[in-house]
Amino acid sequence: MINFNAGPAALPLEVLQQASEAVIDYNRSGLSILEIPHRGKLFDDILEESKVLVKELCGLGDDYDVLWLQGGGRLQFAMIPMNFLAENATAGYVDSGHWSTEAMEYAAYYGKVKTLSTSKEYNYTQLPNWPSLKGEDLSYVHFTSNNTIYGSQWPEIPKSEIPLISDMSSDIFSCRRDYTNCALFYAVAQKNLGAVGNTLVAIRKDMTERIVRSVPPMLSFKEQVAKKSVLNTAPVFPIYVSLLMLRWIIDKGIDAIAQDTNTKASLLYNEIDRNTLFTGIVKKEDRSKMNVVFLGKDKKMEQQFLEFCEENDVTGIAGHRSVGAFRVSLYNAISVANVQTLISLMQDFEKNYQ
Amino acid sequence: MINFNAGPAALPLEVLQQASEAVIDYNRSGLSILEIPHRGKLFDDILEESKVLVKELCGLGDDYDVLWLQGGGRLQFAMIPMNFLAENATAGYVDSGHWSTEAMEYAAYYGKVKTLSTSKEYNYTQLPNWPSLKGEDLSYVHFTSNNTIYGSQWPEIPKSEIPLISDMSSDIFSCRRDYTNCALFYAVAQKNLGAVGNTLVAIRKDMTERIVRSVPPMLSFKEQVAKKSVLNTAPVFPIYVSLLMLRWIIDKGIDAIAQDTNTKASLLYNEIDRNTLFTGIVKKEDRSKMNVVFLGKDKKMEQQFLEFCEENDVTGIAGHRSVGAFRVSLYNAISVANVQTLISLMQDFEKNYQ
Repeated sequence: MINFNAGPAALPLEVLQQASEAVIDYNRSGLSILEIPHRGKLFDDILEESKVLVKELCGLGDDYDVLWLQGGGRLQFAMIPMNFLAENATAGYVDSGHWSTEAMEYAAYYGKVKTLSTSKEYNYTQLPNWPSLKGEDLSYVHFTSNNTIYGSQWPEIPKSEIPLISDMSSDIFSCRRDYTNCALFYAVAQKNLGAVGNTLVAIRKDMTERIVRSVPPMLSFKEQVAKKSVLNTAPVFPIYVSLLMLRWIIDKGIDAIAQDTNTKASLLYNEIDRNTLFTGIVKKEDRSKMNVVFLGKDKKMEQQFLEFCEENDVTGIAGHRSVGAFRVSLYNAISVANVQTLISLMQDFEKNYQ
Repeated sequence: MINFNAGPAALPLEVLQQASEAVIDYNRSGLSILEIPHRGKLFDDILEESKVLVKELCGLGDDYDVLWLQGGGRLQFAMIPMNFLAENATAGYVDSGHWSTEAMEYAAYYGKVKTLSTSKEYNYTQLPNWPSLKGEDLSYVHFTSNNTIYGSQWPEIPKSEIPLISDMSSDIFSCRRDYTNCALFYAVAQKNLGAVGNTLVAIRKDMTERIVRSVPPMLSFKEQVAKKSVLNTAPVFPIYVSLLMLRWIIDKGIDAIAQDTNTKASLLYNEIDRNTLFTGIVKKEDRSKMNVVFLGKDKKMEQQFLEFCEENDVTGIAGHRSVGAFRVSLYNAISVANVQTLISLMQDFEKNYQ
């Protein structure tokens, strides 16, 4: 089964095999990975190696801390303003679609929110302009590096004088990025980085001095940094799966991954543009290389193509319930060959469609 | 290796085997349990069955909702007062030790906290008195059903006119309990109920009408109830492991489990009381049947016994870092035979100790 789901997403077979073995016996410890203590050498080693690999991949120095937290993107939507946005202060949000909008809604519980730019008028089928931040008095600027639902993606992480915070859930580690342009970035694991249940947060050390509100330790970046991801019982297994993915990424090399990402996206977009039955929805220069969103000729044909794919062991290409049609996610575990299989199905279907 | 850790804790081998197989291929779906969508029939079935089994085990009717949330006990420490304790209102806490105390500290961020009773003066080596709640004006009363760190346990869940909230993390499903005496109870999974990464919350429906504060959806019990545990991407794998544990518990029968719990605890406490090298720390009538906490003759002997156990494939009996000495956790996956093995080691060690 080829799984193009947007998340939880496909994982490489070798990662699944190692994870499966660890559930029975982790590293010949005689204990399952589900049983090892979260305070002790076995898990300390997992945390330390995963931190080193994240820093290597992102080019982060000693001025950043790497955390694994629970609660997914939405807990970050809450924790970020809870920590950094005072009641009478303003945070700036760049609105490129669903997840940006939801992050703004969460922030509004804690302070003032300014929409710096939006492409809502285009129904998010293109990116908004990157805002000029000149003269803005903002606690931080938040943006979503890749729009998982509509399928648009920022090509670069801009520099910013105001602390830049990025939700990179759906395109982290898919190419080289200027991660250090961010004061804080986060990514849920269940796309390019492992299994659901943990969220990577990288935070520049000076950010902990910008905390404006007294919150319980579990929700405080300062306390989480101080406790190095084990303030509470850390989700050991999801973090271990992320470590396996990090090793896989490092082993393959980020440049090879970036090249594959380009190849997979080009092949698929070319076919969408060529095939008479399909149409992309996003403006060409803003298209995401991670989540390819497109429409079929009509509802009936869309349904038939979905069924045709399932019959041929291809799953997870139905679009998000708020957009419809198709979404094909090209995360790291998806190979060029997987994409070629899908393209063949699109071509076969076109030939036989009446 | 016999694993007496307090959590993450031992799981039955058959649960580990099924979990391990599901990581490769869940239920012959062709997908790993780490890859299946959190919105879709495969996971809906897991959620539905786990809800039914929790309700069966707890005797809960339609007036309760069952949720699986992330963030562990500490996020509940925060969410409970965030939702139910207004700034000028008071919540009552029964303080039986570390976790009760920490829950109180979290509540103090949101409103007033009244310590209804405490055994701090005895260094928590006994339970406090159960408080009279007559005439109290409290938003809720919180207590910890089993003190994992010091090793004391409430024998019953009292009835209460004021909504009773219980942290049952370390003794849920170890015996029959009057769960419906609670308006809300919660339990992290990594002890009697699966792997770290999800927390069971059962909440009586009228509680959502008592919410006093507007909080982001992710932190709102009302929204979590409305979205039936899939407000965000649920931790599919930990929830599945909990379902496997629930089936295992139902299959064994809660009465048989309760009987084993009594047997395991009696055997071990009898040996502690008999053996010249060990001393229990908790008042006899308040002793926990889940976490057995005891001291050795002296520090040197304690260290030697820990090493002796490790040499004999028995692990996880070192006490919590705040109490020291020994803690043996007798969760559901620990068999009577496992306890007998430990007792033999205690006896062998005593014979040879000089």
